[in-house]
This record gives sequence, structure tokens and C-alpha cells, in this order.
Amino acid sequence: MLFRQLLDPETSTYTYLVADPIFGEAALIDPVLEQVDRDLTLVKELGLTLTHVLETHVHADHVTGAGLLRERTGCQVVASMKGASCVNVHVRHGEQVRVGGLAFWVLATPGHTDDSLSYLVGDCLFTGDALLVRGTGRTDFQNGDAGQLYDSITRVLFLLPDETRVYPAHDYQGRMMTTLGEEKRFNPRLAGKDRAAFIQLMSGLHLPPPRNLELAVSANRACGLPAELSQH
Amino acid sequence: MLFRQLLDPETSTYTYLVADPIFGEAALIDPVLEQVDRDLTLVKELGLTLTHVLETHVHADHVTGAGLLRERTGCQVVASMKGASCVNVHVRHGEQVRVGGLAFWVLATPGHTDDSLSYLVGDCLFTGDALLVRGTGRTDFQNGDAGQLYDSITRVLFLLPDETRVYPAHDYQGRMMTTLGEEKRFNPRLAGKDRAAFIQLMSGLHLPPPRNLELAVSANRACGLPAELSQH
Repeated sequence: MLFRQLLDPETSTYTYLVADPIFGEAALIDPVLEQVDRDLTLVKELGLTLTHVLETHVHADHVTGAGLLRERTGCQVVASMKGASCVNVHVRHGEQVRVGGLAFWVLATPGHTDDSLSYLVGDCLFTGDALLVRGTGRTDFQNGDAGQLYDSITRVLFLLPDETRVYPAHDYQGRMMTTLGEEKRFNPRLAGKDRAAFIQLMSGLHLPPPRNLELAVSANRACGLPAELSQH
Repeated sequence: MLFRQLLDPETSTYTYLVADPIFGEAALIDPVLEQVDRDLTLVKELGLTLTHVLETHVHADHVTGAGLLRERTGCQVVASMKGASCVNVHVRHGEQVRVGGLAFWVLATPGHTDDSLSYLVGDCLFTGDALLVRGTGRTDFQNGDAGQLYDSITRVLFLLPDETRVYPAHDYQGRMMTTLGEEKRFNPRLAGKDRAAFIQLMSGLHLPPPRNLELAVSANRACGLPAELSQH
């Protein structure tokens, strides 16, 4: 498996290139609109064909590159049944997306948003904004639900092996990854906290809204393409 | 080998935690002063002991965390014979630094600065500011020398296998790593360029000086510790 983690410094968003070098097929997870040229250059230089964009959810803090990547490459855009209608392939919990010989297992992990998915390929788990490094996504907009997020993390993600490598959609302290074992032990929102305590903690955060919330969500419901924006 | 890449977002500096989980011994490559707490927390949570800080060179764009890490943990600080006098262990080309069962091979790769080292452990090569992703370090201060940098890259680093994974000290476009094979083929400063063309290219860059050049270099000559600054 060929793997590259990429950062959009402006929004601290991680994009992942995951490819099967034998088949030459590649997926981008959570691409950012402003980084489409960078990402396509890398795909090309590595001799790959972009076949899929996998979205973990409708993002509120950056505009997706999915629509533009589809326009340029003809790739499939994959997201939750509950997500943006502009995508090609709507998936649900337990389904599989095949990229060359790689199988991406779809795990429904709602709570940050109601359409949040995680993807598992090998021992790599892409958690979007559900589970972060020593943190979690917020749950105070876009149909977020703290109890649901607690269940997604503790009853879905934490059932995987402790050694599972966790790649989140963001980190604001420059940490690139973690493992499920670490998060069980050291995540201050989860370790030693039951569901009620987690809900109480999340309801007391009082975070400011993301800078570009309205703009980003409406753009992302159109896969980031202004031309499609009017249709949705 | 346990491996973590970490970013200082302010200066786009990558720090690397490389450890032998069997022996429980860890090295930090190019730590940043402002991130010492983050890095030591991670070392502790992973059940490791920090035994070494490896510096690739005296940096001009951020202040090293080496001195503070040594103060807090008693670790060894390793750098070039030509680097800061505050370090404990001065190394030269071809020497080895052992961290648990891991061997870090020291490669002298001057040109960005005269004290620039790269470190090779397994198939991971930490190149500091010598070789970057699709770029190189600049060569216009701190005894930089474009011809020397060309030689370091093409006659030292490029002799290693193409599959060698390259981890630089910086990237300003959110790319975390590359391989030697990619850089041979796609690095715009090197691919298809001879020594004279590289020297010409580098002499025409006319880059602005780093924001904190004077401050950073003098602080780093004292391993980043103000208390030691007066002694050096």
C-alpha cells in the first residue's frame, strides 16, 4: 500500500493519498479545493490513476476538492448516504470500496455530523472528525450529537485492535497520527469517562463557530464546485 | 521501529520521534523549543525514555528544543563536529549513533550549512535542509555552498536506494515525505541539471532572509537555552 499524508496549512486539514501501486489505482481521502493541483501532481508523478475520492463527511471548515478532482480525472466521489447529494457513490456501514486490490471498509461513525464515516484499510483507520489525536470532533452543529459520537467511538472504533493506526482529518498541534490504544488510555475526553460525562463535557465546550461554516457547508454539499452549487 | 512525524506549524518545521519500542529508547530529530512539552508528553505516553536529540544542523528559522530537552531528561545532544559547541556528542560522516537497537548512520551533507548532517535509520533518511520535497535548502548564508550541496545530494544521498524514504526538516506545501527515486526524477532543482546549472540556479534565487535568522542561529549555538547563551 502506498500512503502519503498531506496537510492544508491554512485549515490544518489532513488529506490522505492511499494507493495500490500494483494496480496503479489511488484514492484521496478528504481532499481540499486549494490543494487539488498539488495532489494531482503527486498522483501523476507516482504513476497512479485517481479512481476515488473518499469523503469522511460534509466538512464545515474547508471546501472539498472532490468535485474538481472528479471533473479533472473522472474519479468516483464516495460519501455517506446521509451526506452531499452531489457524490456518485453513497455508502453505508459495513460496505466496502475497492481501490485496486485495496479494500476500504466503511464504518458509520456519526456524532460530529450525522453523515460522518470512518474508513479502515489494513491497519489504517481514517477517522475524519470523529476521533482526533487526544480529542474528538465537536458536536454542536450539523446534526452533531455527543451521545452518538461517544457510541461511535467506543462501540465501533474502539472494538478494533489497539495497534490500529488512526489518521484524523485535523490536528492543531502538529501531531499526524495516533493509535486506538493511545486514545483509549490518553484521550482526555474519553479515558475514564462514561457516556454521561462525555455528553456533559461536550455541552460545556462553547466553541466559536468555524470561520467559514455557512460557506463551506453549502459549497461542500455541491462537492466544492460553484457550478453545481445552484443545483443543490 | 516506532516513528512519529510532528510539525511546528509556526515555522513549518518537522520534528521526528524515532524509537526502539523493545528497549524503550527514543530519539528526537530537530526538536523545536516551543514544542518541548508536546514532544515530552508523547514520549512519556508511549512509555519511552528520551536518550538522544539528533540535530541535522544549526537552524536559522526556529530555536531548537535540544538544550531544554537535555535539561529535563538528561539525554545526549548529537550534532556535527562543525556545529554548535553546546552539544554533547559531535559526530562525523560514517559514524553511528545507537538508540536502543536502532543504528542511526551519520552522513555529512554540507551545502545548506557547513555543519549539515543527514541520518539514515533502516530505510528512513532524515535530510534536514539538505534535500527537501521537490526542493533543496538554500545556500546563501551560514557558510552555505551550492556546489557542495549538489555534491552532498548527488554523491552521498542519491547513492542510497531509490526506495529510501526521505523525511525533510521542512515543507511549506504540506507534503510530509518523499523518496530518493522521486527526487531524482522530479526535483526541479536537480533533475536533468548538472553541477554548474544547479549553482547558477541557486545563485539566482535572491530569497529574503529568514525572519529570525540572527536570533535563531545565536540561540541554537547555545542549544536553545538562554542560560547557556552567554557562555558561547
